[in-house]
Amino acid sequence: MAGPDASSFSGARCLVTGGLGFIGSNLALTLHRAGAHVTVVDSLVPRHGGNRRNLDGAAMEVIVADVGNATAVSEAVARADYVFNLAGQISHVDSMEDPITDLDLNTRSHLAFLELLRRVNPEAPVVYASTRQVYGRPQYLPVDEDHPVSAADVNGISKYAAEQFHLLYSRAFGMKACALRITNVYGPRQRLLGDHQAFLAVFLRHALENQTIAVYGEGEQQRDLLHVDDVVAAFLLAVRCDEAYGDVFNLSHEEACTVRQVAETIVAAAGSGAVESIPWPPERARIDIGSYRGSFDKAKRVLGWSPGIGFADGIAATVAYYKPRLDWYL
Amino acid sequence: MAGPDASSFSGARCLVTGGLGFIGSNLALTLHRAGAHVTVVDSLVPRHGGNRRNLDGAAMEVIVADVGNATAVSEAVARADYVFNLAGQISHVDSMEDPITDLDLNTRSHLAFLELLRRVNPEAPVVYASTRQVYGRPQYLPVDEDHPVSAADVNGISKYAAEQFHLLYSRAFGMKACALRITNVYGPRQRLLGDHQAFLAVFLRHALENQTIAVYGEGEQQRDLLHVDDVVAAFLLAVRCDEAYGDVFNLSHEEACTVRQVAETIVAAAGSGAVESIPWPPERARIDIGSYRGSFDKAKRVLGWSPGIGFADGIAATVAYYKPRLDWYL
Repeated sequence: MAGPDASSFSGARCLVTGGLGFIGSNLALTLHRAGAHVTVVDSLVPRHGGNRRNLDGAAMEVIVADVGNATAVSEAVARADYVFNLAGQISHVDSMEDPITDLDLNTRSHLAFLELLRRVNPEAPVVYASTRQVYGRPQYLPVDEDHPVSAADVNGISKYAAEQFHLLYSRAFGMKACALRITNVYGPRQRLLGDHQAFLAVFLRHALENQTIAVYGEGEQQRDLLHVDDVVAAFLLAVRCDEAYGDVFNLSHEEACTVRQVAETIVAAAGSGAVESIPWPPERARIDIGSYRGSFDKAKRVLGWSPGIGFADGIAATVAYYKPRLDWYL
Repeated sequence: MAGPDASSFSGARCLVTGGLGFIGSNLALTLHRAGAHVTVVDSLVPRHGGNRRNLDGAAMEVIVADVGNATAVSEAVARADYVFNLAGQISHVDSMEDPITDLDLNTRSHLAFLELLRRVNPEAPVVYASTRQVYGRPQYLPVDEDHPVSAADVNGISKYAAEQFHLLYSRAFGMKACALRITNVYGPRQRLLGDHQAFLAVFLRHALENQTIAVYGEGEQQRDLLHVDDVVAAFLLAVRCDEAYGDVFNLSHEEACTVRQVAETIVAAAGSGAVESIPWPPERARIDIGSYRGSFDKAKRVLGWSPGIGFADGIAATVAYYKPRLDWYL
């Protein structure tokens, strides 16, 4: 369960957007501990996952601003050696209830950010955190990068547009941009509150609070699941991979679990909670995508990345992280 | 060259966004002449193609507003029996120079428009004018709707997102929305001024002004070309086709011409102008897509549509339209 070897980033100036959020904070801490000079940009929008506790009190510059706010972020963007662009609104349900806000934060702000980067620091490599959600309901499994895109909700469409803007800026302007389409992620520093976001976080909270995990229907849909350390490793590889620029890569796992298995594994690791089936709520059913498993062959071939952490081990370590810090996240 | 039979729309309340523009005004006039009650929404943004002359003085309500301006358009949206959504920024070059404006007009305003439609008139069928530009550089010819999307410029990404929002609102909320991916269109009422937009309009202007048409390189790239009357016919079919909702259809032509042939046909029809080759300007070369031909098999099968006007006949009629009205368009 060791993190990636980030020591080669020692001394490098790294900008992490969404750096108080789940994946962003894990990435920022990994770089900070390796001796990088990390600047975090995070808008701390309520409910979006940003949490000042996530940085463990580490001494790094934190700019509280939207990535589209050029006035606030321009100086940090200009001096960055590497840009990790993870800011965003992640709730699929929220995106259907307030689509304009989703578009503004996930697309418009990122287009403004790319324009800024092009103007003040066009040589800096940038990796964008996209999502497997762009594929929508899979037409075949495992889903590779050639699978048609057909996002099932506003969030998937907004994120896809932002991803494509990154690739376009690489192709049209020679910028060093690539994107990672990330499957479900779990691990330390994820927002556990609220029922409007990742099902894994909801399951984990219910188990840790010794409550019942509600699985929609029989919970037979498959998911592949990545520990956040594996995702951090992919960002570090991608940002320095010349072959990756202008391209997109799935981050996924060869181990697939049903939603019910996920719930049961979490309950077993937590030593608390229970699992029950409930009927599908209509607002979830209408954006559900059935089973999903991704292929990470391309990331393996081009980035040299593959996931190292299995779900049972990963969730045990995750539970061990949260148990002494429940008051930070609940 | 007769227009489509629109008489069945007599008495219907039709909303046409972008209705002072090229395709929109032809559609609005067709409906008006058939006895429909037409309301036009057009923001008349300079250089975007909106032109009050395009309505030939016909008595219809014109709302000068952006489609995303709910205050201005809400009442008209609420009472519409049919919605034809053609508003947009169409210049690929402009979209690369001012990407945020392109996103705001082509995506954000349309998402706001869909939200409004969902709130005040969710039963009204709506047809969105998308573009073959969403495919980017073709991987095979002819391009069908299963061809991967990979827009080559900001405009293509913005339009694709708007198109997908229409389809999503159909799938998720049961709205009667579909989209048409339209290839190059020519005909009466197109904006001829400016060099930043459709090559056909630029060619036509140069020929009508007895100037030289500049073809980039050898002009060997193929294009398929639709007369605007054929496009209008497709909108009238699609808006009443139950099977079309939630889906997307190419509008294209089986007749493919090289860019050089297009120029030569225009010069022959105009009886003025000339053709010369010039080197590719870099800002065009970087967003060029090579040859394009689309397949309209799906539109034929589902909508019962196929184009009826060949390029030589269509361009002759087009020249005949502009010649006595050159002062309106030049």
